[in-house]
Amino acid sequence: MIKTELMTKTDLCTASELVSMGLLWKDGKTLLLDQTKLPEQEIWFDASETKVMEEALKMLRVRGAPLIGVAAALCIASRALAGESPDHILKAIQTLRDARPTAVNLMWAMDRMKKIAQEAASQIVSEAIAIFKEDVLLCERIGANGANLINDGDHILTHCNAGALATAGIGTAVGVIAAAHFQGKKIHVFVDETRPLLQGARLTCYELAKLGIPHTLICDNMAAALMKQKRIHKIVVGADRIARNGDFANKIGTYSVAVNAYHHQIPFYVAAPHSTVDFDCPSGASIPIEERAASEVWNRSAISVSNPAFDVTPADLVTALIWDLGVVSRADLLAGKLLSKDALVR
Amino acid sequence: MIKTELMTKTDLCTASELVSMGLLWKDGKTLLLDQTKLPEQEIWFDASETKVMEEALKMLRVRGAPLIGVAAALCIASRALAGESPDHILKAIQTLRDARPTAVNLMWAMDRMKKIAQEAASQIVSEAIAIFKEDVLLCERIGANGANLINDGDHILTHCNAGALATAGIGTAVGVIAAAHFQGKKIHVFVDETRPLLQGARLTCYELAKLGIPHTLICDNMAAALMKQKRIHKIVVGADRIARNGDFANKIGTYSVAVNAYHHQIPFYVAAPHSTVDFDCPSGASIPIEERAASEVWNRSAISVSNPAFDVTPADLVTALIWDLGVVSRADLLAGKLLSKDALVR
Repeated sequence: MIKTELMTKTDLCTASELVSMGLLWKDGKTLLLDQTKLPEQEIWFDASETKVMEEALKMLRVRGAPLIGVAAALCIASRALAGESPDHILKAIQTLRDARPTAVNLMWAMDRMKKIAQEAASQIVSEAIAIFKEDVLLCERIGANGANLINDGDHILTHCNAGALATAGIGTAVGVIAAAHFQGKKIHVFVDETRPLLQGARLTCYELAKLGIPHTLICDNMAAALMKQKRIHKIVVGADRIARNGDFANKIGTYSVAVNAYHHQIPFYVAAPHSTVDFDCPSGASIPIEERAASEVWNRSAISVSNPAFDVTPADLVTALIWDLGVVSRADLLAGKLLSKDALVR
Repeated sequence: MIKTELMTKTDLCTASELVSMGLLWKDGKTLLLDQTKLPEQEIWFDASETKVMEEALKMLRVRGAPLIGVAAALCIASRALAGESPDHILKAIQTLRDARPTAVNLMWAMDRMKKIAQEAASQIVSEAIAIFKEDVLLCERIGANGANLINDGDHILTHCNAGALATAGIGTAVGVIAAAHFQGKKIHVFVDETRPLLQGARLTCYELAKLGIPHTLICDNMAAALMKQKRIHKIVVGADRIARNGDFANKIGTYSVAVNAYHHQIPFYVAAPHSTVDFDCPSGASIPIEERAASEVWNRSAISVSNPAFDVTPADLVTALIWDLGVVSRADLLAGKLLSKDALVR
């Protein structure tokens, strides 16, 4: 078990209380840390109502592919405990499932909740708690699998936030970094600020500071120059959806990092749980890309703006996928190995 | 002659009055448009005093490789008209020459002014005016040379600002785009916002709107995804210094665009006047890169930040250099052809 301030909190989780960096389940209520206010303000709010959770998902008060699935599942548990009818619960599941289009974990979690939506409240609560606890465990396994790929002295680049604020546990990409750090490896992290919403600057730096991992913030457009100067040795990012062929969607800008990593022959790793793999999705071309409001990019004068929230990176730019079940090399990814539903049943 | 609102203004230039989008020479005074306040506010101020010009250069109130050379030269002319001694004028030349380290045009212009610093004020003024007028002409020639490379219907990406606000004329990269536009070609420009100081969002969009050229603002990290989607057909950027071997420095992020252009086999053009070529600089490795204040990137909480203002792109990623003397292909750049002082004497 990785020992961190964050994981210690998670150790305290009981059936009646679950704690992660950005989510609290207590007395049947689903509480969220408003991530749009970080790092300046740490404001928690009750998102046990469907409409509040829906707004929180759409406005990115809660974000991160794994965490939005967990948060939505716990909101459904809160609805069940509040005595809502199966019909209302099914409607709530659909509403939350539709709140964000790209990350598949939300759909995966809602499909799990849908299967037991007609059952007793206690069973609905149990399923949501299981999803939370599983995510903690998936993060630990990803961290353990990925830490072996990190060397003492490595400078690691990450993009956006795939850490404790994006999951119920220690994170995926940041989970790998944290696990290497707790193995005693001296590492330095370069953090892409991640325009337009600055999840790297606001959230990843916040997490790394709490973890005591040295880091430097850069603008997204600086990463390539650092690679050319050989100041970046590894890249680890998260994923919002991985297609059957290994293509994956992640925060806008990931593809540019991947192309640059390939050009500079720097290992480029994707860290994500198996819940991020969409076996029904044949390739990246089938992943829907969310277009968000122009005002996220620019609201100072009238300018035509394009604001896709994600981009797709083809599998052939990925050195390896680090998931809870192991490490899948590019060759295996491209050969379609391990990425089958069968691989998960074991 | 390219007909534009901007060029019409320049047509009005006389010996006693010079007008560009960001600079006004009138009654012996050097006036600047404060580019840090654009696009919201158009504030002009008198930068005829050495200290005011020095601060304006350092704070980027005036910026753009060609324009900072022109502005500094006119400031020296203002000092001469104010009756300052040759000693003071030489000191002023050195102060302004040192204000920014990367763009060579500033040094080139100051070295020209230094040669006539002991002469009569009228001669000093003539030299500064000549530098201004030459830059207008250089832009026109770059535009004419580059416009032929642009096709009807092209979508063109540009980074930072290399337009009328960066030169005394119509611009270099934007000069090429404007010239193609005025040839009647229907083009669309994608504008990288250009973090950290958003010269693309603030300045290039401002210029393109005045020119009536359709454009879309994107975050820097979105360009690669657009290239993959075949929505960008050409890339044109400016340069702050071009080494003898064709390597060049430009605004941070240019290198990432170049790597992505190469990966996607999209033509990548650099547009700059011969005053941007530093024949004493053997390669990009010798170009000093200005590191600017962390607060330009992030000032909301204490985070370690890296903020190089420029990066270097090697010549082998450049499809062609568009300069006032013609178009130099990659093969010729790499063979060292045309890039010799001899080439300029003709």
